[in-house]
Amino acid sequence: MALWGGRFSSATRDEVALYSESISFDKRLYRHDIEGSKAHVKMLAAQGIIPEATCEAIRAELDNIRRRIEAGDFAYDISMEDIHMHIESALIDVLGSEGARVHSARSRNDQVALDIRLYLRDEIDFLIGELRHFQRALVAQADANPKAILPGFTHLQHAQVVLFAHHMLAYVEMLDRDAERLADCRRRVNVMPLGSGALAGTTLPINREMVCRELGFDRVTRNSMDAVADRDFAIELVNALAIFAMHTSRLSEDLILWCSQEFNFVELDDAFCTGSSLMPQKKNPDVCELTRGKTARVYGDLTALLTMCKGLPLTYNRDLQEDKVAIFDALDTVKMILKVYPPMIETMKIKAENMRAAASDPALMATDIAEKLVELKVPFRTAHHRVGSFVKYCKERGKRLDEVTLEEMRETIPEATAEFLTLFDPEQSVAKRDVTGATGFRQVEKQIGYWKKVLA
Amino acid sequence: MALWGGRFSSATRDEVALYSESISFDKRLYRHDIEGSKAHVKMLAAQGIIPEATCEAIRAELDNIRRRIEAGDFAYDISMEDIHMHIESALIDVLGSEGARVHSARSRNDQVALDIRLYLRDEIDFLIGELRHFQRALVAQADANPKAILPGFTHLQHAQVVLFAHHMLAYVEMLDRDAERLADCRRRVNVMPLGSGALAGTTLPINREMVCRELGFDRVTRNSMDAVADRDFAIELVNALAIFAMHTSRLSEDLILWCSQEFNFVELDDAFCTGSSLMPQKKNPDVCELTRGKTARVYGDLTALLTMCKGLPLTYNRDLQEDKVAIFDALDTVKMILKVYPPMIETMKIKAENMRAAASDPALMATDIAEKLVELKVPFRTAHHRVGSFVKYCKERGKRLDEVTLEEMRETIPEATAEFLTLFDPEQSVAKRDVTGATGFRQVEKQIGYWKKVLA
Amino acid sequence: MALWGGRFSSATRDEVALYSESISFDKRLYRHDIEGSKAHVKMLAAQGIIPEATCEAIRAELDNIRRRIEAGDFAYDISMEDIHMHIESALIDVLGSEGARVHSARSRNDQVALDIRLYLRDEIDFLIGELRHFQRALVAQADANPKAILPGFTHLQHAQVVLFAHHMLAYVEMLDRDAERLADCRRRVNVMPLGSGALAGTTLPINREMVCRELGFDRVTRNSMDAVADRDFAIELVNALAIFAMHTSRLSEDLILWCSQEFNFVELDDAFCTGSSLMPQKKNPDVCELTRGKTARVYGDLTALLTMCKGLPLTYNRDLQEDKVAIFDALDTVKMILKVYPPMIETMKIKAENMRAAASDPALMATDIAEKLVELKVPFRTAHHRVGSFVKYCKERGKRLDEVTLEEMRETIPEATAEFLTLFDPEQSVAKRDVTGATGFRQVEKQIGYWKKVLA
Amino acid sequence: MALWGGRFSSATRDEVALYSESISFDKRLYRHDIEGSKAHVKMLAAQGIIPEATCEAIRAELDNIRRRIEAGDFAYDISMEDIHMHIESALIDVLGSEGARVHSARSRNDQVALDIRLYLRDEIDFLIGELRHFQRALVAQADANPKAILPGFTHLQHAQVVLFAHHMLAYVEMLDRDAERLADCRRRVNVMPLGSGALAGTTLPINREMVCRELGFDRVTRNSMDAVADRDFAIELVNALAIFAMHTSRLSEDLILWCSQEFNFVELDDAFCTGSSLMPQKKNPDVCELTRGKTARVYGDLTALLTMCKGLPLTYNRDLQEDKVAIFDALDTVKMILKVYPPMIETMKIKAENMRAAASDPALMATDIAEKLVELKVPFRTAHHRVGSFVKYCKERGKRLDEVTLEEMRETIPEATAEFLTLFDPEQSVAKRDVTGATGFRQVEKQIGYWKKVLA
Repeated sequence: MALWGGRFSSATRDEVALYSESISFDKRLYRHDIEGSKAHVKMLAAQGIIPEATCEAIRAELDNIRRRIEAGDFAYDISMEDIHMHIESALIDVLGSEGARVHSARSRNDQVALDIRLYLRDEIDFLIGELRHFQRALVAQADANPKAILPGFTHLQHAQVVLFAHHMLAYVEMLDRDAERLADCRRRVNVMPLGSGALAGTTLPINREMVCRELGFDRVTRNSMDAVADRDFAIELVNALAIFAMHTSRLSEDLILWCSQEFNFVELDDAFCTGSSLMPQKKNPDVCELTRGKTARVYGDLTALLTMCKGLPLTYNRDLQEDKVAIFDALDTVKMILKVYPPMIETMKIKAENMRAAASDPALMATDIAEKLVELKVPFRTAHHRVGSFVKYCKERGKRLDEVTLEEMRETIPEATAEFLTLFDPEQSVAKRDVTGATGFRQVEKQIGYWKKVLA
Repeated sequence: MALWGGRFSSATRDEVALYSESISFDKRLYRHDIEGSKAHVKMLAAQGIIPEATCEAIRAELDNIRRRIEAGDFAYDISMEDIHMHIESALIDVLGSEGARVHSARSRNDQVALDIRLYLRDEIDFLIGELRHFQRALVAQADANPKAILPGFTHLQHAQVVLFAHHMLAYVEMLDRDAERLADCRRRVNVMPLGSGALAGTTLPINREMVCRELGFDRVTRNSMDAVADRDFAIELVNALAIFAMHTSRLSEDLILWCSQEFNFVELDDAFCTGSSLMPQKKNPDVCELTRGKTARVYGDLTALLTMCKGLPLTYNRDLQEDKVAIFDALDTVKMILKVYPPMIETMKIKAENMRAAASDPALMATDIAEKLVELKVPFRTAHHRVGSFVKYCKERGKRLDEVTLEEMRETIPEATAEFLTLFDPEQSVAKRDVTGATGFRQVEKQIGYWKKVLA
Repeated sequence: MALWGGRFSSATRDEVALYSESISFDKRLYRHDIEGSKAHVKMLAAQGIIPEATCEAIRAELDNIRRRIEAGDFAYDISMEDIHMHIESALIDVLGSEGARVHSARSRNDQVALDIRLYLRDEIDFLIGELRHFQRALVAQADANPKAILPGFTHLQHAQVVLFAHHMLAYVEMLDRDAERLADCRRRVNVMPLGSGALAGTTLPINREMVCRELGFDRVTRNSMDAVADRDFAIELVNALAIFAMHTSRLSEDLILWCSQEFNFVELDDAFCTGSSLMPQKKNPDVCELTRGKTARVYGDLTALLTMCKGLPLTYNRDLQEDKVAIFDALDTVKMILKVYPPMIETMKIKAENMRAAASDPALMATDIAEKLVELKVPFRTAHHRVGSFVKYCKERGKRLDEVTLEEMRETIPEATAEFLTLFDPEQSVAKRDVTGATGFRQVEKQIGYWKKVLA
Repeated sequence: MALWGGRFSSATRDEVALYSESISFDKRLYRHDIEGSKAHVKMLAAQGIIPEATCEAIRAELDNIRRRIEAGDFAYDISMEDIHMHIESALIDVLGSEGARVHSARSRNDQVALDIRLYLRDEIDFLIGELRHFQRALVAQADANPKAILPGFTHLQHAQVVLFAHHMLAYVEMLDRDAERLADCRRRVNVMPLGSGALAGTTLPINREMVCRELGFDRVTRNSMDAVADRDFAIELVNALAIFAMHTSRLSEDLILWCSQEFNFVELDDAFCTGSSLMPQKKNPDVCELTRGKTARVYGDLTALLTMCKGLPLTYNRDLQEDKVAIFDALDTVKMILKVYPPMIETMKIKAENMRAAASDPALMATDIAEKLVELKVPFRTAHHRVGSFVKYCKERGKRLDEVTLEEMRETIPEATAEFLTLFDPEQSVAKRDVTGATGFRQVEKQIGYWKKVLA
């Protein structure tokens, strides 16, 4: 019979035990559960709720249980439901009635809220570190290829030429926001719920502020009913992870395109690709494709979490047990992405000549002509229309924009001068984009410098 | 080096192997992979593509591999990626170059499409059987409690009295549609993709129709590019599972309400409830709550699947590997629900007196008065307004509707006769609802009879 | 005061009226509401519940209201909540107490269920017709370009050559499943709920079967509580629409790639593209991009519907009013897609020479070499490895596969003969794929014939 | 022909114009578009890119256009696509070639990013104000009912008694986190993208920092490609709105339960409820139910946004146009909730006697007995088990916990003293929960004081 079984006449059925167990996935919380219990009993003893000697015995045995778990010397049993019951039960097995004092002034409701907050605080700190690592890999590629020019795309159409380094740094920006969002979320994670009891607090004279300090939280929760019912921080975290995954899905899409025979801008290292069981020539950018797929998975986790919380009456409801399935899956998925991407980016080979060849499409410089006309005081909308007509003129004649004479250009752009014919040079086009955030060499160099300092 | 590694210079990195492996979850397809391969080689031999003796050797060894897997005597290794490579590799280990013939005229793309269709066909058949079992449990409760009357709710407000049996049968209807949807989906699952190759078919003279017959499919796929890119059937299946889960979440909500101290209409068996680590009196309907939570999980799986397929170019892309994570999770979750609910419903105790007491709220019979007025040729909207005024009249005087005299009733309902005062009897109210599908005793008895026959 | 306001002391607040109104979106149901009411009163009269003359007056006035609505001569007012109340109220305005009889033996709960089923039945029939039209546009492109060869892709890498016509037909298959799914859903839509009342049926002697016949339904619902609580059919429909949208998102992705300067396989007509406010040369495949975005929108509608229904207790709850927002948005979005795609496909120009040039990449024929070896009785896995080594050999030497001599080929493929050097011809490669569903000329021609017959 | 139509041979088809227009929903951005353009031309003049007089003319006419729009004197036309083109076109209509200078050094890509950020900044500020208003309504109810005691629930089962005021404050906490999250999001919204051009910046000598100051942004974006491709802030905002909606769905669930005949703890004002078309007695908590439904709708918007961004290559793609549909729908829905809830909460009547009657269930005090035993140095787990046995003992005898004698209690709780029989008093039970965040009178009073000060 379970530890809570006093009022029950019959034991939980096997199917129900299987249905309701969480030990198979919440065992990963063991370290934080033990950390929380150690702080809890220290406070209980300080407040005279349990004897000092009991506190010491429990803390020592909790350390012992931790060692046993880490050594693989700890038996799990779904009839014990979850990691909290496993550890309390193991304590009682060894310490008898002394162990039976650990759960004084505590409910699993506030205990699990504590554990998951401690756990997520650690995970967030780890993730932020990994994000920095990922950013460094992107900055390194930018830094190693400061002159590589490729077509920039909007609508997957040639738009304007950009620096490959600039493209890499766009992803550095995204990851920076991801880290910021995690840090913001951490402030809401780092609030101490223990002492909220099942929902109403406790009649015993506990000291929540002491536990708060002991565990390094910023403050204690202010309302016990909210504290046991709240999973906002988990939703907020998984949303931040979903946005991060989305960023990697976009990077992956770019890489998949660039690896195609049609683009042929980069080559991923063999170690990050796989072949085909049938087609001997294949080398597929599987990691990138899987990441798009795994992004969908993280979205599924977010959907599950949000849906699960909708319409629940206060306070704790067992539906919330499923939160951990979604949280852990999202975290594990994102941590795997963070493990694979930095080395994949670092080992990626840039085919700068192919990029440059594609960047020589003179249509990419059409805007430069229009802006040159603006310099000559032609109203922009007129300038745009003239260049548009010029594009149409060339298309109808089957010519590239740089294959016309000045006379031909003047048929649609009367203001054109000889200088106009020089505007189709990609390097010059890049160089002229010299405002903050633009793709000009000088600006990108500045940004690389900025990031190297920030990420040092 | 992987079986496809001929053109590769370096091996897959460990993190990448871990990132891209699917053996941890697709190993459950072993039986269907073997079944498919056996049919495939039989056809290859019949067409003269491989020798008859090779075919026999491969089929025998495939059976052997199956036995080894089922006996736990088969080593898995993530560097082998998936179940398909594991089995082919094991074949080659034993049979050498004979085994190396199994993958002739086949790609993993069509192979995995075949395996998942075979697997889902079995799962659907199993699920339909389990749904019938669940329906029988609900019908049995209806049949055992044909007279129990409780308040029917709309907006969670007392609406009209209904039979408990009628309420149970509402869920039988829902499950019936679930079974129908699965059967419809099965028709789209049961189409044979093998022979589509990687995307374009094969240059070898295979006989797809033979494999189709051998494996009991209805027909072969008509377009090889579609065949390897298609995951519609999986989305359709998971959507059907999501709707089923939604149905169980609604039943669960009803049961949670009915188990509350405020409603107190039923008691679930102790074996389906759990207690509290803190509060000794608690007996919680955890299974029902978990089911609401698990419904959210199935929704997450559906979101993942749909998102994953969006915007993929033809044909196969590795994103699709993640489909199995979502499909299997949805199936496993639903199969657990189907395991737990029938016995929980069967062992549930009805508190018919409490239901009857709640059903004696005379406001539940307000519509009966209005409809009695319609019988007396009062236009319905007028009748509705009079009874509404009567309700307001009683409320202002702090009386129940059945605590007034005929004179009092006539202040708002001039047409009222002595018969009107008899309309507050719940049994009579139920009995009068005697049209197809209504809650009248006769109708519900008829429905119980119908379902007992259908489900026999 | 609202028609149901008899028991209320104060009117609905303005913000609440705005919050709870549905007339702004459910007014589109007017035709089906009127159709349902006409059948309802015909039955009421036949059963003697209302006088025959009342029935005639109501039916005539309902026709009149319909004409007023269609002429724009009908005032909407959010205080009247929904289309049902608007029409009943308009009836009463004209007919007085005769009009006040229309709602006898009916609730808005079964009325709205009826209206939405009638409406969706019409929509499904319309959608299936539009799908056929879309299929015809794809078949016409296939039929007009029977010889165009392009690279087929897996993982967006060159895989094997395929026919452009085969690629088009892959989408014809997808749309065919979409139509099938809609037809299956229609069977569950086409069930008659009227007579279920608010949740319990009615005490009045109605004849549901008569209404069922009158309105062309297959059968009546069997359980009144289920009938007013059920929105399965809407979820199932929106899921079918989501899968259809996903198909169009994949087609769109293919077209976006093909329109890029790097692929350059097709050109969409100017009428289906838009330009850039800044870049004069741009011609963007906006329709395709928007369709990817709109697919996400339909997914959002499905998420909303599923989430909305989860955990609702029986029977009707007002949450369900929001169902129509999601259903109508999904339908409108899909109908717009169906309006735009057929002409866009019809007017699309194929750049067959560019396709053919890309298809001449000899790596696309690597599998043909491996399969040729299988013909020569080399075990497939060995053959695959040899060709893989050959690919690597060429890559290291910077050669295309068709730039080697027979001697060079034999370094990795000892079995190679002069015939092997002829295998790099795309037309020949396609032609040899001559099994059901494969991309061979003969097979594709057969499929085009099949579809032309089916879609005639 | 559109303003960008220079290179086009044929106009956009009507269906395509309809498919791709956004004016029907982005016209609400007019004010922010004009604000942005005014700052833009001021900078252009300061930099000498356009004449000062042109700047003045444009600014004056932009104000005029704003007045025309607000007066309803502005024609919309889907062939003009969006609000940006409408306003530029209106400028050119009046100012001719002077107006044609407004779009110098700007693309719609950075313009729309600017507009939406300006718009969302305003919306966030408005929402935070409304959240404070909502909090005040909850605090006022808490403050007006400081002594009302009701059962607290976990698993919808009686758990421990709590103060109604404490329950209200739980929601105040949730709304506080909502406001915090919005403030965090605002920091990422308040970054200035203009000057990023289409994707690469501009060749014209603009001054982005000047525009940044002029429009009150914190800083300029650092990477032009990221700036036009980024929709993180919108996802983050809609996620914050989804969490807020979820909070209101939980409050709504509580209210729906409390309004049921079975709970009967509160009564909502008639002005916030609606009746039934059929059942005259009905008064339904529609606002609460609709809010649960509308929560699902906001979730749908989030799903749409996330899905839409997944896998997009850099930089801008037209898919992103659909972002506004989802963003605006989520905002509008949430703003309606914020309009309706404060007055609904303010006018809600508490039925304190009914709450108190339900709170007198002695099982709610079972934990108090266990904690009393802990005071007497009984190990908690033993205490829990004894009280559990006591509960079972009473249940088997059909007695409430407070209907036993001390002798009877001692059969399962040997340590029980006469004082134990006094523990079933709800007021005493609440009073003893006197730790931070608990439901004790003193603590709740303190929290009310805290919030009144914070929200003053």
